[in-house]
Amino acid sequence: MLENIKSPQDLKSLSYDELDTLAAEIRDVIINTVKKNGGHLASNLGIVEATIALHRVFSYPEDKIIFDVSHQAYPHKLLTGRYESFDTLRQFGGISGFTDKNESPYDTVTAGHSGSSVSVALGIAEANHALGSDGFAVAVVGDGSFTNGMIYEAINNCADSKDRNLLIVLNDNEMSISKNVGGLARYLTKVRTSSGYISFKHRFDKKLSRIPVIGVPTAKFLKWIKDSLKGAVIKDTLFENLGVPYIGTVDGNDIERLEKAFSEAKKYKGVSIVHIITKKGLGLESAENHPESFHSVSPECNKGCHTTSYTSVFGDFMMEAAKRDDKIFAITSAMTEGVGLLKYSKAYPDRFRDVGIAEEHSVAFSGGLSLSGLNPVCAIYSTFSQRTFDQVFHDVALQGAHVTLALDHCGIVSGDGYTHQGVYDVSLFSSIPNVTIYSPETFEEEHASLERSVSGVGVNIVRYSKGGELEYDRSKYTGGDDAKYIIPDAPLDAVIFTYGLISAEADAVYRALSRKNKIGIVKLIKIHPLDRDKILSFVGGAPIVFVIEEGMKAGGIGEKIASLISEAGTGTRVVTFAIEDEFIPHGDRSSLLKLLGLDSETVIARAEKILASECEGTRDKIKVGC
Amino acid sequence: MLENIKSPQDLKSLSYDELDTLAAEIRDVIINTVKKNGGHLASNLGIVEATIALHRVFSYPEDKIIFDVSHQAYPHKLLTGRYESFDTLRQFGGISGFTDKNESPYDTVTAGHSGSSVSVALGIAEANHALGSDGFAVAVVGDGSFTNGMIYEAINNCADSKDRNLLIVLNDNEMSISKNVGGLARYLTKVRTSSGYISFKHRFDKKLSRIPVIGVPTAKFLKWIKDSLKGAVIKDTLFENLGVPYIGTVDGNDIERLEKAFSEAKKYKGVSIVHIITKKGLGLESAENHPESFHSVSPECNKGCHTTSYTSVFGDFMMEAAKRDDKIFAITSAMTEGVGLLKYSKAYPDRFRDVGIAEEHSVAFSGGLSLSGLNPVCAIYSTFSQRTFDQVFHDVALQGAHVTLALDHCGIVSGDGYTHQGVYDVSLFSSIPNVTIYSPETFEEEHASLERSVSGVGVNIVRYSKGGELEYDRSKYTGGDDAKYIIPDAPLDAVIFTYGLISAEADAVYRALSRKNKIGIVKLIKIHPLDRDKILSFVGGAPIVFVIEEGMKAGGIGEKIASLISEAGTGTRVVTFAIEDEFIPHGDRSSLLKLLGLDSETVIARAEKILASECEGTRDKIKVGC
Repeated sequence: MLENIKSPQDLKSLSYDELDTLAAEIRDVIINTVKKNGGHLASNLGIVEATIALHRVFSYPEDKIIFDVSHQAYPHKLLTGRYESFDTLRQFGGISGFTDKNESPYDTVTAGHSGSSVSVALGIAEANHALGSDGFAVAVVGDGSFTNGMIYEAINNCADSKDRNLLIVLNDNEMSISKNVGGLARYLTKVRTSSGYISFKHRFDKKLSRIPVIGVPTAKFLKWIKDSLKGAVIKDTLFENLGVPYIGTVDGNDIERLEKAFSEAKKYKGVSIVHIITKKGLGLESAENHPESFHSVSPECNKGCHTTSYTSVFGDFMMEAAKRDDKIFAITSAMTEGVGLLKYSKAYPDRFRDVGIAEEHSVAFSGGLSLSGLNPVCAIYSTFSQRTFDQVFHDVALQGAHVTLALDHCGIVSGDGYTHQGVYDVSLFSSIPNVTIYSPETFEEEHASLERSVSGVGVNIVRYSKGGELEYDRSKYTGGDDAKYIIPDAPLDAVIFTYGLISAEADAVYRALSRKNKIGIVKLIKIHPLDRDKILSFVGGAPIVFVIEEGMKAGGIGEKIASLISEAGTGTRVVTFAIEDEFIPHGDRSSLLKLLGLDSETVIARAEKILASECEGTRDKIKVGC
Repeated sequence: MLENIKSPQDLKSLSYDELDTLAAEIRDVIINTVKKNGGHLASNLGIVEATIALHRVFSYPEDKIIFDVSHQAYPHKLLTGRYESFDTLRQFGGISGFTDKNESPYDTVTAGHSGSSVSVALGIAEANHALGSDGFAVAVVGDGSFTNGMIYEAINNCADSKDRNLLIVLNDNEMSISKNVGGLARYLTKVRTSSGYISFKHRFDKKLSRIPVIGVPTAKFLKWIKDSLKGAVIKDTLFENLGVPYIGTVDGNDIERLEKAFSEAKKYKGVSIVHIITKKGLGLESAENHPESFHSVSPECNKGCHTTSYTSVFGDFMMEAAKRDDKIFAITSAMTEGVGLLKYSKAYPDRFRDVGIAEEHSVAFSGGLSLSGLNPVCAIYSTFSQRTFDQVFHDVALQGAHVTLALDHCGIVSGDGYTHQGVYDVSLFSSIPNVTIYSPETFEEEHASLERSVSGVGVNIVRYSKGGELEYDRSKYTGGDDAKYIIPDAPLDAVIFTYGLISAEADAVYRALSRKNKIGIVKLIKIHPLDRDKILSFVGGAPIVFVIEEGMKAGGIGEKIASLISEAGTGTRVVTFAIEDEFIPHGDRSSLLKLLGLDSETVIARAEKILASECEGTRDKIKVGC
């Protein structure tokens, strides 16, 4: 049936039986595609019926659906004209694993970070109101994202927008990525395990008379409400205390009931929350039973899958560190598995905290832990650490607190695309005083950097990539914990600086350029602050420096090296290969490097040209090998 | 009496009558000092009694009090050994207007941003628990800060820390900085206007038997509870739904009652919230009646106070823009007056939104407004915009939304110190693709930059300083909306680049250096992205470029210019004068510039040395005027 659904409009004529068949088909396609391409599984299996119901009740382009984080948008994609191309999921040039506004007019936003959907949807609803449009904005938010502060800020603000057309769907699958934590999760459990109720207080109190229920007698209408949503009215839910009318709970895998609840919210013409209960992983027994293991799934391994990864090295380090230092304390924002802390969390439950999807809090909380004498290690994906700049500044660095930030998924993150690339953290955190940043490339370097961080002072950031070490011959590199390098005797034609996973490409560039020129290469491990004298001594009298950087050029290490060298007045030309002013889509690493001009082939070609023109140039400098 | 209070210990022997006298003295000192030095008034007048009560119940160093934002910490300062030096409030080298951990061991943290106190206090409480300490962490949070997402994230997390010694004091003065907004404010109003109640549910349910109330018979104890806190038990407050026991409301200007409530919370030995009602501005009639005008007070003007400021130019621009473009929509985070939108908010209430202290939400909300066709202008102080990096990235720039960010209080912010300097925004936002940054220096340039921003596309940031234009002779500058400059005919000895308020210092440097050398000066208005060819043409063949920048060096415009020029391979030396790796205290602008080495005198001396050594150097370059 799915092949006949060209747009959500095609859903509207189907019977509930047909819709159930369609839902089963959607599940099959998702399970098979994710098996092959990797991706988010459990959350997508849980949201199939709700997606169908939403598309039957709301209509593009006047209405707009925003999926929070949007790792639950596969059913939405399959229903909005992307069935044919769905087998390209997460592949370079293929369908994104998240909503992507460049991919389809049905994707309102390009998403990937948690908690912003209600803010954006409220903005859309407010604008619709101002512009006289009747369109609805719908935010679909998992219960995990409800632990995020932005959701609270937005809901608090909703009370000042009561008559705007906004529906918040609380998609409660009883867990976020890991098991849910915190007061809200307990509250939702209480709600779920109560007899089931509807409490759309404001509607009943004030608006009932305004809703046109033509042809439906009140008694029948109330019976229908009772039948379809079951339960008694309870006043003053958490959300109603915050001023937002609430309807719930609704079986989130029953299309008919969902449709009725969403229709009610639409008729209400105001801000409301519909609380639906879905079953994460529904339709795949193993995923239903262990949804945490099926949140994000890697493609099946044929060969070459890493058993050791930067993440597992971090996890092992934490086990070691906690064993010998009882002040070690690990913090994660709902990513216990993702950052490699599962084993640790079981071994040291008293020195572990999953704070929920609350990165801001996690960093400030870490600052507090340090102020009272613990040794906190806060693990976050680079892209989510973007939420924590102000906390690293205000609640950690400024306090002189000793906190280690372990940033996973730095640099290019192959499968996930625009919202998951870890390419900003260096620009961000290097601007804060007293922050030290390590960007190790090998597991050994990672271990040593973590060691230095937990035994050091102040803010120490250890950043590393998704996946694991790349293979190349490192035997000629010498150096210590700050840098590894090959520096032939002067005079040199050029020196290459690099750091992190892209060192493998830089090494290939080094070898290629070395065929015609005398080249040095420095792989930085401690990338900030840079030791001015050491950098200058690496450069020696070389007329050219190349920086090869897997991060934004603006604010990156290349600019810092250029500034440092320029200030010294040696006349050395610094050319940086890094990410220019552009967003980076999803795809495999090698395609993305090529797209960004950071693959060794492109860099070699450009570098050779520069070396040649320098040799031909009129500038007076030490000319070597020309 | 105040002169005899050397430490909070001295409070413990005083009678309630004496404490009332002391409270009156504290108010006098605060009113007189703020009149002279400027500072926060209304919030400090409201919190006098609560501060006394906290210091009688909790004892340093085992217990720690954290004031959220800490613009209400003057009474705390006066009671912790800083009465003698209090007349230096906000002056260079004097007492900070915020808590400052370098100033006193009684200041647990250096604070200034909203919403982080509970996170930090929870971290301290968690560490105390892990380390076997009985100490309490106390977070004092205004109701305004309760609209901030971090507070919610922390409270949500408290439910997993029930038996940690943490007290959250909700200091409810019925307003934040401007009038309170949103659902929480309405909820608190409902609570306040109800008959008054205590609901410390968990304590009554489970813990009562565990509290040692030696010598106090149960009947008397319960009568005392009723007398001192009045009212009946109400279950399921908002906070209890989130898992945190609640006690309230308590008259926040009655020392005896406060003391009893805080003592109860201390005996409880767990996380709890005590909700106190204080009167903002208490003791100064004009402040009681118009607390919003007495939140932050400027020192009395003798002469030279600005009537026009960058802020007022922004406010006037918004009035103009809204008049001709009905899609203009203004957003602030509880800073209607601070960012100059008071007049606008009254003239265009339907196109204005104060979202509460919720900067993250404000930016994502702005993104949503743009996606549905409005023209949002979101005004934030630079330092608070640090909270919004991820939203500018994820919810605005990545969506291709058209949002203008008006950043006030950029660069050095004289009175407020460490937490209020606006020196990071350039490093932060310039790393995001498709962001344009203007840093105008004159009112006219500010107006033109705002004009370009609202009529442009994508993310446009207009950043400007606190205060207003500085006076110097700009008559010789030519150029357009991107830059103003004086570029004599080549060959030049050096070219100076600068932007923003520090252009006045740069101009002085230009004039001084021009006495012996041939110098050009470029005052950038559009500072990012830089036009490579234009920059290179300004430089011409000059051997030296000086960049004078009122912002962090790391990630700043100096590094970008150095990188750009170095990459071009012209051999020009770029020396940047900017803020190195350090935090900046409070004080007057000229003292701070001197401290940072950014006053014209210091820059001239260093620049002259560099010019001289260049002339004497061995490098082969065009030698002019040596």
